[in-house]
Amino acid sequence: MMECVDGMHLASSGYAAGSDARTKPWQVVAAEKRQADFAKIPPEWVLAPLVVAEAKMRRSLVGPFFEGLLDDETRRITVMDVPELFVHISHGSLTAVQVVTAFSKRAAYIHQLTRNMLEIGFDMALKRARELDEYFRVHGIPIGPLHGIPVTVKDQFHIRGLETSMAFVGWIGTFEGKKGTGKEKHFESELIKELHNLGAVMIGKTSLVQSIWSPETSNNILGYLWSPHNQRLSSGGSSGGEAVMQALRGSAFGIGTDIGGSVSMPASYNGIFSLKPSSGRISMKDVANTGPGQQVMPTVAGIMGHSIQTLRLVLKSLLSTEPWLYDPYIVPLPWRDAEEVVDKDTRGEEIKPAIGFMENDGVVTPHPPVRRALCIVKEALRKAGYQLLDWNPPSNEESLQIHGQIARGDGCPDVWEALQLSGEPEVPEIEGLFGPYGPREPMSLREYQDVVVHMRDYRNRYQEYWTSTSTETENGRPVEVFISPVTATAGLLPDKFFYCEYTSCTNVLDYPTVVVPVTFADESVDKMDPCFKPFSETDRINMEAYDPSSYHGAPAAVQIVGRRLSEERLLAMAQRVVDALKRHMSGSD
Amino acid sequence: MMECVDGMHLASSGYAAGSDARTKPWQVVAAEKRQADFAKIPPEWVLAPLVVAEAKMRRSLVGPFFEGLLDDETRRITVMDVPELFVHISHGSLTAVQVVTAFSKRAAYIHQLTRNMLEIGFDMALKRARELDEYFRVHGIPIGPLHGIPVTVKDQFHIRGLETSMAFVGWIGTFEGKKGTGKEKHFESELIKELHNLGAVMIGKTSLVQSIWSPETSNNILGYLWSPHNQRLSSGGSSGGEAVMQALRGSAFGIGTDIGGSVSMPASYNGIFSLKPSSGRISMKDVANTGPGQQVMPTVAGIMGHSIQTLRLVLKSLLSTEPWLYDPYIVPLPWRDAEEVVDKDTRGEEIKPAIGFMENDGVVTPHPPVRRALCIVKEALRKAGYQLLDWNPPSNEESLQIHGQIARGDGCPDVWEALQLSGEPEVPEIEGLFGPYGPREPMSLREYQDVVVHMRDYRNRYQEYWTSTSTETENGRPVEVFISPVTATAGLLPDKFFYCEYTSCTNVLDYPTVVVPVTFADESVDKMDPCFKPFSETDRINMEAYDPSSYHGAPAAVQIVGRRLSEERLLAMAQRVVDALKRHMSGSD
Repeated sequence: MMECVDGMHLASSGYAAGSDARTKPWQVVAAEKRQADFAKIPPEWVLAPLVVAEAKMRRSLVGPFFEGLLDDETRRITVMDVPELFVHISHGSLTAVQVVTAFSKRAAYIHQLTRNMLEIGFDMALKRARELDEYFRVHGIPIGPLHGIPVTVKDQFHIRGLETSMAFVGWIGTFEGKKGTGKEKHFESELIKELHNLGAVMIGKTSLVQSIWSPETSNNILGYLWSPHNQRLSSGGSSGGEAVMQALRGSAFGIGTDIGGSVSMPASYNGIFSLKPSSGRISMKDVANTGPGQQVMPTVAGIMGHSIQTLRLVLKSLLSTEPWLYDPYIVPLPWRDAEEVVDKDTRGEEIKPAIGFMENDGVVTPHPPVRRALCIVKEALRKAGYQLLDWNPPSNEESLQIHGQIARGDGCPDVWEALQLSGEPEVPEIEGLFGPYGPREPMSLREYQDVVVHMRDYRNRYQEYWTSTSTETENGRPVEVFISPVTATAGLLPDKFFYCEYTSCTNVLDYPTVVVPVTFADESVDKMDPCFKPFSETDRINMEAYDPSSYHGAPAAVQIVGRRLSEERLLAMAQRVVDALKRHMSGSD
Repeated sequence: MMECVDGMHLASSGYAAGSDARTKPWQVVAAEKRQADFAKIPPEWVLAPLVVAEAKMRRSLVGPFFEGLLDDETRRITVMDVPELFVHISHGSLTAVQVVTAFSKRAAYIHQLTRNMLEIGFDMALKRARELDEYFRVHGIPIGPLHGIPVTVKDQFHIRGLETSMAFVGWIGTFEGKKGTGKEKHFESELIKELHNLGAVMIGKTSLVQSIWSPETSNNILGYLWSPHNQRLSSGGSSGGEAVMQALRGSAFGIGTDIGGSVSMPASYNGIFSLKPSSGRISMKDVANTGPGQQVMPTVAGIMGHSIQTLRLVLKSLLSTEPWLYDPYIVPLPWRDAEEVVDKDTRGEEIKPAIGFMENDGVVTPHPPVRRALCIVKEALRKAGYQLLDWNPPSNEESLQIHGQIARGDGCPDVWEALQLSGEPEVPEIEGLFGPYGPREPMSLREYQDVVVHMRDYRNRYQEYWTSTSTETENGRPVEVFISPVTATAGLLPDKFFYCEYTSCTNVLDYPTVVVPVTFADESVDKMDPCFKPFSETDRINMEAYDPSSYHGAPAAVQIVGRRLSEERLLAMAQRVVDALKRHMSGSD
């Protein structure tokens, strides 16, 4: 029987114009890919249809229901975070094969319940795990700081042995839409080589939205991806498959990409931690992408996982491979331990850093659950003794003008071409990307360069504002980081996304950001604010879409933003925020 | 009497359309600026007309003739390089006033003989020098590592108290072509603030080519600028005024800008040292420029002076001001002492670095004097025990395709507008920049982005080549730097510039470069190679333009190129090259 994604049926029209299936309808090509992937799941890991059906009916997959499907060994291993796994592996109390098997099995379950994997690589992962165990047996030490750690990546990264479709049906069976390059399933992205050399084991590649240009994850291969915390809500996107994988712990950490919040937003919607670095720290060399000629505001690779320690360990490990020798766009900045240490005064007392705090950017007001998350963080930091400064930088309205034009000023002809290869239609989530007959007219180069000048000016003024905060802080230094909403909503109702500037401004500014999950939307607490007055039409529409019961159970997070290329300091500050939050929420502050 | 630049007469037609002189012909506006600047030279420093006339007749200004014009005190001080000056100043054996006076006087002479200054600031420099002396008197220590050091900068940098015309007549009396902004003679570039805070004293601004888009320095304010080493040759450009200032030691060091060789080429043609860093080390914030919306291959500020020690001291000083706090485009990389040290092996022996060596890029063959300079360096390094590897990276022909399109793909409408402000004509040196009726059609954004993709690919392949040299070196590491010609000629005959890719490729690649002067063209030695066979039409034309007698006396230099953002390592390697050269040329190697 031909497997179908909900609402997607095999039409007799629309034969694929290019790609693997020049003579097959795109629906068949997509279905064959789904089936081929499904066939890679070992039979003993295939869930009973009744379990899958029951999962579909549930509001949330997270917690006892999902844990109850697992055997003890799998549960015991997959509950561990990266640092703990590494301790076990490097002490020989867990083998790479055990760890990779446990996470692969869990990932297989997740995929069956959510459809979040575009490529499955359990077999090759197990092979690599055996090699690693053999290495450990012979040498008595791990091969690297990520020895045996299972990782999944968004399906933009090329991994030898796996296909990269980037969710385009027309790319199936090709290398980025081209046949006969010899690169298919052979070529590897620089970041994948680094992860491999560090000992990490790639177990598969995760789903994303067709074209990357939407905050919802939806494509014609796997369909629409829902949040495991609340299956009425979107997983978010574009790195939604990865966020779902982390939320249900199907790999120990994941890699997404971000040009406007594509790592941070799904991290926030799925209750996980993430790091979106500045451009120039994590390699994007030889990675498939849309808009490859847009290098003014580059897409960055980000890390998604379960703790700040994991984000830190992964970044530090990656930098230890000296990626700047292999990728000319990487800044030669090794991991800087010194940046993690907070200065002390002459009496040896720690100089308590000041933190900027933005509860509302004055353009679009966050929904009540996000506001509550911010209040919790604020209270925790106050009690921990941090000076909090109201954060009033140049407006996000300005970055809003800049972001879309820089990102998609060319009219996205590459996306259009990729769709033409198979004849697949645009998914509804990218409606409006094209005009009725194809890509929109690109901006002229001169108009575009005017926007670049605006961007530079905005960056300058933002930086000047940041540096000027030294006049307001008790320690006479500029704030170390600022904290703001990640998005205006906790969770995302399909088709109800109106505003991305809380994250997109950090792409315009090239600032690194960390997402920290704080709490969950609670319909009994997060009531509409009766005093709400909209700043704008977008603000009104966004708040009108708030409905306590629909969002109930969705994770609510905050983001912490650092200066450009200050990842070490940012992660150290994020750890302090997490520590303060833990003390606060346990009532011990 | 109205002062006129050679060959430039006051036409009755062509009234200025904008700028200060909406009712004056541009020639009058330019002449008034020249006169106003001339009036800033103290009467006792004005040279006799006979001296100026004699200077014009001479082939070379450098050496006894120029030195003979100076008094002992001026000569004694201005012969010193920055480190020596600083020792004197910080020990109190020279005051800032003495140093600034001596260099200002020398600069005044240089300007009278060469016309290389667009703005003179001797009076405000002296005022600042008095303040610095007072500071030193009160505190007993210098205000910073450049205390009292006189500096000149290309007329793109804004200095409070001076005008920025960038050699456009239409910008005279305005701020970057606009009136009434309140910024005229008030606004300062970030780099100028840093230099000021470090104690450096700005004594004036130097000439450049109209529009910046030519390797010859020529404009409608000061006319054509000649090389002081051989007045039949061009000073080179676009930072020609600064190179001439350094060649004749009118300031202790200078700042130019570079997007295709505009620092390196004039440094080479004038026998001085220069550093063109990677983008992101020296601030270009709030600097006037053409093509401001082009940020894919940014213009960089470079340092010009008399030794590697000076380049090093200035860069290290600038980085000590933490410019990344003020300029968002600066990478937070403090000066790295560790990068200057060459590694040692287990026995404590220094691991001799390997060096790439390119005598000819296979596109355009350097003239005999340049070839001889390369041979001298090669021999010196061989004798000093360095392993030299033939350097065969991706072709400069490829970067040639990329460079012009990235730099001027927009058709330079901003230059056209600047010319329209006053009605001044294009100088012949930028002939071809525009079509008959104005700027050329810009590339489309999509074509432009295709070039950006090509650029990224080129950078990747170049980097891969560089890293792959580890398989050929004796120490198993990639070469540290590579050495190549700066340009295909030693000196530049007017209108005989055919090829800039020896430098431009380093802009495409964002690699830092150091220019090291080696020798001088010598008609008795540098004969045409009878075996020369051109690679291309450009190669043929370039070599046909070689004429031993015309180029006689012109400096011949080499450039040393480092990896992106590796300025500390590059300067340390350049110092080793200079040391080896000194030993070799003194016969002590």
